[in-house]
Formats: sequence, C-alpha cells, structure tokens
Amino acid sequence: MKELRIGMIGYGFMGKTHSNAYLQAARFFDSEHKPVLKALCARNQEKAQPFADNWGYESVESDWRELLKRDDIDAVDVCTPNNLHKEIAIEAAKAGKMILCEKPLAMDAAEGEEMCQAVEAAGVANMVWYNYRRVPAVSLAKQILESGKLGRIFHYRANFLQDWTISADVPQGGAATWRLDVEAAGSGVTGDLLAHCIDTAIWLNGSINNVSAMTETFVKERVHAETGEKQAVGIDDACAFLCRFDNGSMGLFESTRYARGHKALYTLEINGEHASMRWDLHDLHRLEYFDHSDEGIVRGWRSVHVSDGDQPYMGNWWVPGLQIGYEHSFTHQVADFLKSLDTGEPAAPSFRDALETQKVCDAVLKSAADSRWENV
Amino acid sequence: MKELRIGMIGYGFMGKTHSNAYLQAARFFDSEHKPVLKALCARNQEKAQPFADNWGYESVESDWRELLKRDDIDAVDVCTPNNLHKEIAIEAAKAGKMILCEKPLAMDAAEGEEMCQAVEAAGVANMVWYNYRRVPAVSLAKQILESGKLGRIFHYRANFLQDWTISADVPQGGAATWRLDVEAAGSGVTGDLLAHCIDTAIWLNGSINNVSAMTETFVKERVHAETGEKQAVGIDDACAFLCRFDNGSMGLFESTRYARGHKALYTLEINGEHASMRWDLHDLHRLEYFDHSDEGIVRGWRSVHVSDGDQPYMGNWWVPGLQIGYEHSFTHQVADFLKSLDTGEPAAPSFRDALETQKVCDAVLKSAADSRWENV
Amino acid sequence: MKELRIGMIGYGFMGKTHSNAYLQAARFFDSEHKPVLKALCARNQEKAQPFADNWGYESVESDWRELLKRDDIDAVDVCTPNNLHKEIAIEAAKAGKMILCEKPLAMDAAEGEEMCQAVEAAGVANMVWYNYRRVPAVSLAKQILESGKLGRIFHYRANFLQDWTISADVPQGGAATWRLDVEAAGSGVTGDLLAHCIDTAIWLNGSINNVSAMTETFVKERVHAETGEKQAVGIDDACAFLCRFDNGSMGLFESTRYARGHKALYTLEINGEHASMRWDLHDLHRLEYFDHSDEGIVRGWRSVHVSDGDQPYMGNWWVPGLQIGYEHSFTHQVADFLKSLDTGEPAAPSFRDALETQKVCDAVLKSAADSRWENV
Amino acid sequence: MKELRIGMIGYGFMGKTHSNAYLQAARFFDSEHKPVLKALCARNQEKAQPFADNWGYESVESDWRELLKRDDIDAVDVCTPNNLHKEIAIEAAKAGKMILCEKPLAMDAAEGEEMCQAVEAAGVANMVWYNYRRVPAVSLAKQILESGKLGRIFHYRANFLQDWTISADVPQGGAATWRLDVEAAGSGVTGDLLAHCIDTAIWLNGSINNVSAMTETFVKERVHAETGEKQAVGIDDACAFLCRFDNGSMGLFESTRYARGHKALYTLEINGEHASMRWDLHDLHRLEYFDHSDEGIVRGWRSVHVSDGDQPYMGNWWVPGLQIGYEHSFTHQVADFLKSLDTGEPAAPSFRDALETQKVCDAVLKSAADSRWENV
Repeated sequence: MKELRIGMIGYGFMGKTHSNAYLQAARFFDSEHKPVLKALCARNQEKAQPFADNWGYESVESDWRELLKRDDIDAVDVCTPNNLHKEIAIEAAKAGKMILCEKPLAMDAAEGEEMCQAVEAAGVANMVWYNYRRVPAVSLAKQILESGKLGRIFHYRANFLQDWTISADVPQGGAATWRLDVEAAGSGVTGDLLAHCIDTAIWLNGSINNVSAMTETFVKERVHAETGEKQAVGIDDACAFLCRFDNGSMGLFESTRYARGHKALYTLEINGEHASMRWDLHDLHRLEYFDHSDEGIVRGWRSVHVSDGDQPYMGNWWVPGLQIGYEHSFTHQVADFLKSLDTGEPAAPSFRDALETQKVCDAVLKSAADSRWENV
Repeated sequence: MKELRIGMIGYGFMGKTHSNAYLQAARFFDSEHKPVLKALCARNQEKAQPFADNWGYESVESDWRELLKRDDIDAVDVCTPNNLHKEIAIEAAKAGKMILCEKPLAMDAAEGEEMCQAVEAAGVANMVWYNYRRVPAVSLAKQILESGKLGRIFHYRANFLQDWTISADVPQGGAATWRLDVEAAGSGVTGDLLAHCIDTAIWLNGSINNVSAMTETFVKERVHAETGEKQAVGIDDACAFLCRFDNGSMGLFESTRYARGHKALYTLEINGEHASMRWDLHDLHRLEYFDHSDEGIVRGWRSVHVSDGDQPYMGNWWVPGLQIGYEHSFTHQVADFLKSLDTGEPAAPSFRDALETQKVCDAVLKSAADSRWENV
Repeated sequence: MKELRIGMIGYGFMGKTHSNAYLQAARFFDSEHKPVLKALCARNQEKAQPFADNWGYESVESDWRELLKRDDIDAVDVCTPNNLHKEIAIEAAKAGKMILCEKPLAMDAAEGEEMCQAVEAAGVANMVWYNYRRVPAVSLAKQILESGKLGRIFHYRANFLQDWTISADVPQGGAATWRLDVEAAGSGVTGDLLAHCIDTAIWLNGSINNVSAMTETFVKERVHAETGEKQAVGIDDACAFLCRFDNGSMGLFESTRYARGHKALYTLEINGEHASMRWDLHDLHRLEYFDHSDEGIVRGWRSVHVSDGDQPYMGNWWVPGLQIGYEHSFTHQVADFLKSLDTGEPAAPSFRDALETQKVCDAVLKSAADSRWENV
Repeated sequence: MKELRIGMIGYGFMGKTHSNAYLQAARFFDSEHKPVLKALCARNQEKAQPFADNWGYESVESDWRELLKRDDIDAVDVCTPNNLHKEIAIEAAKAGKMILCEKPLAMDAAEGEEMCQAVEAAGVANMVWYNYRRVPAVSLAKQILESGKLGRIFHYRANFLQDWTISADVPQGGAATWRLDVEAAGSGVTGDLLAHCIDTAIWLNGSINNVSAMTETFVKERVHAETGEKQAVGIDDACAFLCRFDNGSMGLFESTRYARGHKALYTLEINGEHASMRWDLHDLHRLEYFDHSDEGIVRGWRSVHVSDGDQPYMGNWWVPGLQIGYEHSFTHQVADFLKSLDTGEPAAPSFRDALETQKVCDAVLKSAADSRWENV
C-alpha cells in the first residue's frame, strides 16, 4: 500500500466534498494507493483548524508556497477561488506535485494554456474536478454511447438551472459568495455551471465548433459581503448558447441562477438515430433511456434506476434499489485517480481536457459580448 | 348501413358519456351499424327535454315501460340508479330489446342471476358498461398478457381512490348524490369503484377465489339531498380486500372516497415472472411496462405513451403523441358493440361476465360484515 | 339559435380535427350560434365524398372559388397547405366570409400582411388555428400569469420535439407529407412546430425583440411521394434559437423532427421571480406549478391535474380526475369563436396576432441563413 | 470529547452500513461523543480481518462472549442473523453494554419481551436499526404529521416490493442468503421487509389493533447455499395484510420478493382530512405532499426535493438540490444515538418500541396461518 499524501488548499464547500471523497474512496474502492490527509492550507490558520481536526488533516499551513516546499506532500488539491488556480498550479507543477484542481481550470483559456504547459513540462499527474462525469448514471450514458447504441447523433441539450440569487439582497464577494464576484470567479454561471455541462458534453459527444450566445445580468448591483459597499455586478446571471458539434449534431445550452423552482437542476439529453438518453441531477440515480429497436407497442422511455452491481461504480456500494447521492461522484473521481496511479494511465479530465471546456466558455462569453457567432 | 335505434333510460352523467359515445363511434369507427338516438326516457319529461335536444334524441318518453313497447327501438341503454337495473333489464329482455346496462350489473348477485337468465332466455345482445377495459392502455395490457410476455403471475393490485366525500356536508340521495344512498346504490365504493377494479382484474388475470375484506363508513350521518333530513349513512365509504386468484396469484384491492389528493385515481399493477405492468387513470394514456429480458444495464420501467396507430383503438384517432381522454373509453365500447353486431360475436363484458364481478362484490361485503374470509 | 354555416377547404388531418370540433362544440358548450357543416371543398370531389358523408357535410365543391360564391356559407375554414392560404383568404375576405385559417398564417410575413389588410378591410371575423392556447392547462397558465403570481419574468423556454422523419425513406410532397415539401409548406419545423411555440410564447410572455437561430437539414435528399423522383430537401429539419422578449426575459426555443423518442413533445416553461410553470403536450392535462411563497419545508413543484370544473373549459366536460385529450383544444377554439360571435368581441388569435408569430418565424429563418442576430 | 467504543458482531451487509455510519456521523454531525471502532467479532477471525482492516477496527474477536467481557467496549452492535439476537442481547445487557441491535428485534414477540426486560433491568441504552425513520423525507413526514397539517387520518398504506428471489435457482441459507432460511430468519418478507413498514407506520400513525393477513411461498423448494441439498422453503415469499389503527384509520400493507421490476420499492402513503403524503425508497430524497388548503386551480401533489438546510438532517450535508442516498439513514441514526448520549434522552426506536412491531409481525403470521382476523 502506497500513501498518496494530500495537501489541500482551501476548505470551503469543495474542500468538504474532496475531504470526504479521499476517506470514502479508501473504504469502498480497491487500490494500491491510499490517500492520507497530510496538510490543509488556508490563509487563516486558526479558522481552518476545526475543519482540519474534523477531517483528520495532520497539519495546517497558512502559506501555500510553504505547502509546496514540503517533502511529505505528493499531491496538491486546489480548492481556492478561480483567480488563484493558475499561480498555484504552475508553482505546484514546478515543485513536482501532482495537482487536482477545482473547475473551471482557470479564469480564461490563456491562463489554462499556461497551466497545461506547466504540468506537461513537469510531467506531473493532473486532473480537474468535473465530478459529474462520475455520477454512475452519467458514466453509464458514456458506456452506452461507446457501445454504439445511439448511432448518428442529431441533438445534444443541457441546462443547469438554479434560483438562489433571485433576491437582490444576496451579497457578492467574500468566502461564501465569491462565485458572484467577477474578480474572483472570472464569470458567473458560464464558468460555474455551464462549464460542467460543456465538460460532460464534450466527453459524451465530442468537440464543439462554434457558438452563438447571449448573457444577462438581471440584478445590476449587489452589496459586497465583506465591505458592505454597493458594487456593480460583473458576472453573467444567465447564459444560453447554440452550438454545432464536430460530429454534425446541434447543441443547445442554458444556465441561470434565476429559474425559480430549480435548486441545482443539471439536465442533459442526447438524441441519436436509434436511441436517446436523458439525465438530471435532481434524481441523479436515474438514467432515462429510449431505444427505438424495442417492439413498437411496448416502446417507451425507460427509467433506469442505476443501482445494480453491473452498472458503473455501483458494485462497490449497496444492493440494487438503494441509491447513492451527490458526494459519491467525488469519491468515484478519487477512486479513478488512485487507479490511474496504480496503472500509470493518466486520469481524466486532465488539465488539457479541461482547457477545451475553457475555450468553449471563452467563446461563449465573447459571442455574447459581440452578439455574433464565435468559433471555439 | 343498418340503424341501431337507441332508447336511453336516464340522463345523468352516464347518459352524457353514452350519448357522446354513440355519436363519436359512428364518426371515428367503421361498422355496418350506425347508432340513432331515437328516444330518451326520464320520469320528468320537461326536465329531460334540453338534454334530448342537445344530443339529438328524436323523442322523450316519461315511462320506460312505454319505451319498451315501441317498435322503433332496437336497444335499451339503462343509465338509472342501480336499484332499477333488474326490473328494466328483465322487461327489456322480454320485449326483445338489446340491452346495454350501466355497471354494476345489479344490487346483488341474486338480482344479477335473474337478469342473466332473462337475457339468455330472450337471446338478446347484452353488455355492461365496464368502460375501463377500452382505455387503450388497458386494452394494450390485455394484449400483452395474452402474448405471454409476463409468464406466471404472482401479484395483482388495484385501487380506486377519490376524495370528494370527505366533507360531512356532502348530502346523500337525490339525482346528483344517489351513489351515497344505500337504497339506490346498494353499496358505496364497492359497487361504484371496486366493481371497475374487479371487472378489469378478472378480465386480465382470471377468476377470484376467496376474499378477506374490511369496510368503513367514516361519516356516519348525512343530510338527504331532497328531503334535507339527517339520515344514517348506509354505504361503505372505503373498502379494502385481500384475495386469491384461481391462477395462484395474490390480489390486493382498495377503494375509498377519503384519500385526500386523489380525484379518481384508478391504478392497477400486475407482476409476472418475466414482466410487469401498471396503469393509472390520472394519466390514462400511458402504460408502464417492465421487461426483465431487457439488457441489464439499461433495464427499467418503460413509460409507453399509448398514442400510436398500432396500439389498440388509436389508429382511429390522431397521430402519435396526441392523447385521447376519458370519454373515448365509452366510444370504443360502442364501436366494439357495433362490431359485435356486424360479426355476430357477442360483445363483452356480457351480463354473465358482469355477474362474476357482482359475486366478488357480494363476497367482499359479506366478508367485511362477518370479519372473515369468504369464498366467491 | 343562429346557424354558422361552414365551408371547409381541405380535408386532411386538420379537416378531421376541425370537423369534430364544430360538432362537439355545439354539444358541450352553450352559444347562440351553432355550426352547420354546409360544404366541403376539395379538388377531387370523389375522393372527398366519404369524408363529407362521415362528418355530415351537406355538399361537396371542387373549386374553392365556387364555394366563396355561395350565399349559404358564412365562414370559410382554410385547411389547405400553407402556399394556398393567402389567395384563398384574400378572396374569401372579398366575398365577405368569416375566415378560420390553419396555421401558420402564410408562407411569410409579406403574405401575412396582405391577408391582414384584406380581412381588416372587409371587416370579417378572422381567426388562426393556434389550438394549443386552448389546452386547459395552457389556458390556466395564462390565467395564472395574468393574476400576477409569477412577478417579473426571467426565462421562457419551449421546444417541440418529434422523431418521425429520421428515416431517409420518408418521402416528401403529396397529400400526406406536404409538410416536408418546401414549396407547399414554406419551411420545415419552423412554420410547422415552432410557430405553435412562438404563438403561445407571445400570448403568455409578450413580444419577441430579436433572435439568433440555427437550422439544419439532416437528410439532404428525399423521394417525392407522388412522382417518385429524388429531390433536394428544402426545409429545415431542425431549428433552435435564442431570443430576447420585450419584457427583458430571455427565450430559448428548439424544434426538430430528429429527437428520437419524442412523438410530439411540445414543452414550455416560464420562470418568474415568485413562481414558475411548465407544461408538456405528452401529458397535456397537467400543469406543473412552483410557488416560492409556499412554506419552505413543503415547497415543491405541484403537478396540477387540470380536470376540475373551476379550471378553464373543464366545467363543460366530465368530473374531476377524468382527463380530456388533444382534440378538445380545437373544440374549445370553436366554442370561443362562437362566443365571440355572440358577444361581438373579436376572437383570438386573429390574423394580426398570427402575423406577429409569422414575423418571428421570418426573423428566425433569416437569422439562421445569415448566421447573425436578427431583429423581429 | 468522549469515546463511544463499539464492538460489532457480524460483518455482512449491515456491518458495512453501520461501520460507515459510525465514521460518517463523526465527520458530519456534532456531538460530545465520538464512535471508535474498537473490535469486530466474527466466528472466522481470518475471514473477518480484511473487513476490520478496511474500516479500521482495532481488533478482531472470534467469540462474542469474549467481546462482552472486554472493558474497552461501551456498546455492542448486533449484526447477526435474527436467531442470535436474543442470546447476545441478553448477555450484553447483563454485561452492562449499550446495545444497538439489527431489526427485526427477535424471532418472535416472546423473545423480544425477554430482551426488553433484560435491557430495562440493566438500564443500558438500547436501539434497533429501523433506519428508514431517518431518511430525511420520512423524518420530514413525521414533522408534518406532528404539526397537525393532515388532520384526522383515514388511510395508511405501505408496501415493500422486491424481485430478487423469483428465480428458483437462488439458494437459501449461508452467509449471503440466510434471509431465505426460516431457521436463521424466523420469517421471510414479514420480518425482513414488512417490519420496516410497520415500524414506520406505528411511528407515524400510532398503534395497530388487529390484522387480516395472507402469505404465500411461491417457490416451494430451494437448494441450501452451503450443503447443496434441496430443502423445503419455510419462509413467506410474500405477505399482505389489512389492519385497523387505534386512531380509526384503515391500513393496507404488502411485501413480496416476487414483484418483477421493483428492486427495493418501499412506499408509504398517508391520507388525512386536510393533506396527504407519500414517499418511496427508489427516490428517497423526495416527499410527495398534497395540501387541500392550496388554492383550487393550482392545487396538486407537490414533489418536495428534500435537500434544503431547514429540512431534517440536510443542514449537515451539501447545498439545496444535491441529494443524499441510502447509507445516510444509518449515519443519521448514529448521530441521533450520539445526541441521546449527550442529552440523556433515550434513543428511538428502543427495544420496547421494536417489540410493538414484533407483535404486529407475529399477529400477521398467525392471521395468515389461521386465515382469520387476529388482534395484535
């Protein structure tokens, strides 16, 4: 058994999902490698200590550069706001650390390209936390696609709908709401939510060629969470785009934080010549599947309860009929990362994979700004 | 083209569904026979006239015995409260009329037996309006069962849940609420709702052997709709029973008018060795179907939208994806009755078929009264 | 009781839905006016005769100009392919006939404008068969919107997904498949399906400002249904567009005949500040409704079974829990047209209303052709 | 922080769910007590070692009597087949250990009564793993009921449907299939599945008075998993029963392992005067709720996605819209047990609570054997 000694930078919501994933992966999945929560890094050491204690981090660092210097750290997990990803990742690569970086990869594709070059030059293992690929129903969709059951693809559509920022009283900036602050986040729903949709789409349906997008900022001013000052809102509250995939299929994407009634409704659907599939995050343990080759009189969308041992990842959990939840997607990603260390095969999505998503995001934002079609 | 000259007795809710069915069947289904709305019969001729005018009945009779004497009537449609079925049907049979009788067949099996003997002695066509057999999704279920896809049957369950009598202010008796009056209806939910469930069950799954039932009357007194007097409630507000079918499968039935949130939720489910099906009246155009022979990783309940031309009755309506409604079940029953006249094959369910349902209802009520298992 | 003497031109699928609607509206809805099926008009009189007989048309004409000359015709119902709408409507207006025209109004907005001017100059009642407004659940959505429950609107999305032309063996042109022939139809899914989505959207959410669209023709050549010759396909097989509404909300529309698994899935969703609604044609009797003012712990999307007497149109049908179907939307439109004759209030959507939809369709097709945003 | 030193007996499926729960409860819920996985006990120490290593048990015992003698064990977790519960629990009580016992409590009520007396005499904390009470949606149902929103209760129905023993090739007995062996399990679906339904029912709706049940054994002979010998099957494959609750409501319960298409479909529904609720295990993160006090035109069943911070237990997990799974119900039960140690309030369900469920199970089996109503 080899240790994979983790140094985590940041301890917000994602810090919690990742910490849980490291511990759970070791319990539920076999690997020669076992994660060890070696160090947590946060500017304010005192505030971070309870988190470290709860999850069993052996130490707390207050300067990520110090963390990178430590010999007892194999891998750095970057859970900071987006505007810090680049610097940390490049330095970590130079320090020879493996890097597991939160999504989106960077503030823009230019940053992302630098990061890719850094990890590739250093030859360090790298992965980006596009966790939804590892929801078993989504992994199953990939498996079905690869089996050829769908045939030629005509349509792909995805959206990610939330409603938590409708109130103008929600602040921006600070630890809890940095995702609304354009300085920290780079963009709004495009980088936060659409990036997930795009990553899955490219994984399932291949590259995106060109896009036509529109964005909107419904609430124009918000108070800053820390300073209390009223500021202009710089992010996109909502974004929708049309696109064409390399395989000739048409794409339709939408994301918003103003869709009353939807908490975190990531849905995707893909229509092929012979079969179609759809999935949504609010019932993430189900995959809807339609197969035109079924006998006509009993043909219909099948609601597949993805909880059987022969479905992706599910053999490691409970018994048929007993569902898993959101957090397991991270556990599966850790499990696959560990397996990649066992086998030497690179883990996915790599920085390079995530850069493609970043390029689409950039094209989307540029298309919206210029009100015209943009090539990726 | 031969005329089928109808004399309808009663003009309540069922009178409306039947009148519509006669007219629509002629438009949407082919037959050598065409229904003609010859006469409506109602005690109060004046009050019935607008109904007759609306539907195009050529005349109105106030005495059903006079109606039976008329030479220009081929078939009598009995839409009266249950306590009049027997007398009318027997006299109609003697008069050589075909009889289409509302369900349940009679007040009890003894009455029903007399009625069967009468129509069989007279050799007149006879049918009972258990309309749900002709909902296309239910007819499709029958077709699937007959194809053998389900294999050995283990379970059958059905319920019919309503909530319209929860308020103690709902009266009983009179034209609109005779179904709550034990004198007119014979029983409560057993004859009104469970009879439907039982008819479909026997049709799909064969005869019922024995039952253990319980009933309840939640509201003990109601005002009479016409007299305004407070009366004891004599009907069963709710009834549930266990049973065993001849084929060895177990049955579970329930009906109530006290299930808050359900308007008219007739559901049925049948579980076989290889496949299962379920259906509900609130989405009557869908059949849920599960086939264990589907490949494991994409196996799931299929939601079959029964609107294709190769599904029962649907070739006569619109195009795939466009659903029909409740009233069409009656239209289909008329269409099948007309076809039976074309071919000489008897229509179903006959009085004799409906008598079997009546016997189960009787056993259910007796079982509930005696608190013990009862053979049918 | 005044007669409304109908002359119907064309007797395809829409001829059937309209004929049924005229007869059913008279039975189920009160009005001082009663439709009379006076004449059917079709080029081939012989082939049309059985249809006329079935529905009770008193006569059959082979030349629509002759029909317009008849004094015993009050209203003309235009059920021809789209390329004949303009000429017939203009001549009918000149002849002083009321006009009920199938959708889309015309081949393009220029034609539509001529038609509007013609009916307005003649002062004849006019209406376009955008029937989905009268699905009770959709009418209920309109009522809810007008009550102000939703507050400021952020998003509107709709799609109309079919799969019946995926096979390259489906022909184009001829009586059954003229909708695939650009000469007869003007466009593909844009005029056939998106026009419905746009009409409802404008009715519910107000005018559309500008659009960015893309279209695709997946199957490039098809055989002509009558000549058997292989031809280029001129229609759009699929079309998607982004748009902005006058009220500041964002719109997303998509239609295709290549979405495997969807027969006729028209869905719409509208997200407001306080509430949201969604509906789909495959379960047309339900409206999904989310109200943020519900108590938090029991807040959720409500599945409203639109079958109660106090919901639009439903008081004229059956009892709570018993659903109606597709055809009833036409019956309701006739009923409302008759009521407009009773009251003198114009019926909707008028030609002028439908012209606005036409202008959006034109802008969509132009945007797709030019790959840029287009103002309506 | 006080340690709660666990000695677990048995390491099958339930051993896994409990081990995970101890670790996760400590991470996600606050308490003064922290579980420590002190010892695992299993007859075959060697086979149990990998399980102990994986979960971090500090030692492995092969004799549960030795375990009970250890001073460093505070609580014993009984995960053995049912036929060992009584002896272990009574001895553990005598040894002054807290006891967390898997369900059902015992082989029958007589055994259960002895166990209750033992723990009550010893004054040791005791709890039975009826985990479904702690699914957040079910806990929410309890909270809603206690708020009085439902009013008078008319109906309760529950079923637990599986399909994994349809094949006659499934063996009985042994480590994996002891639940099919009447010697080890005591009964079939009654103790395994209906016991869950009954526990929840009593918790939500109060005591059950009397029952009328039927059972069936569809496959009469099976091979023993270890000996390979063909044996008679002694368990009930399916069981259904009617009952009356003390509060006057009617109950209907069913369980089977022969319902093709259902993996582990535990559903419950409760109908009150003013509101109704339903839930099912296949989508355990949702509660369906109907409130008659909603405005009529927008009244419908609400699908409540139980993932908000103000809903039971969910404040300790992720963010709204992100669901949890099956295993979390055990984590919540541990969290509540720890809280009970913090506060001194007894944890539920206690042995005494579980005895009531056992008595209903006994009455059900007796009723089925005697084919008559049985008082509990």
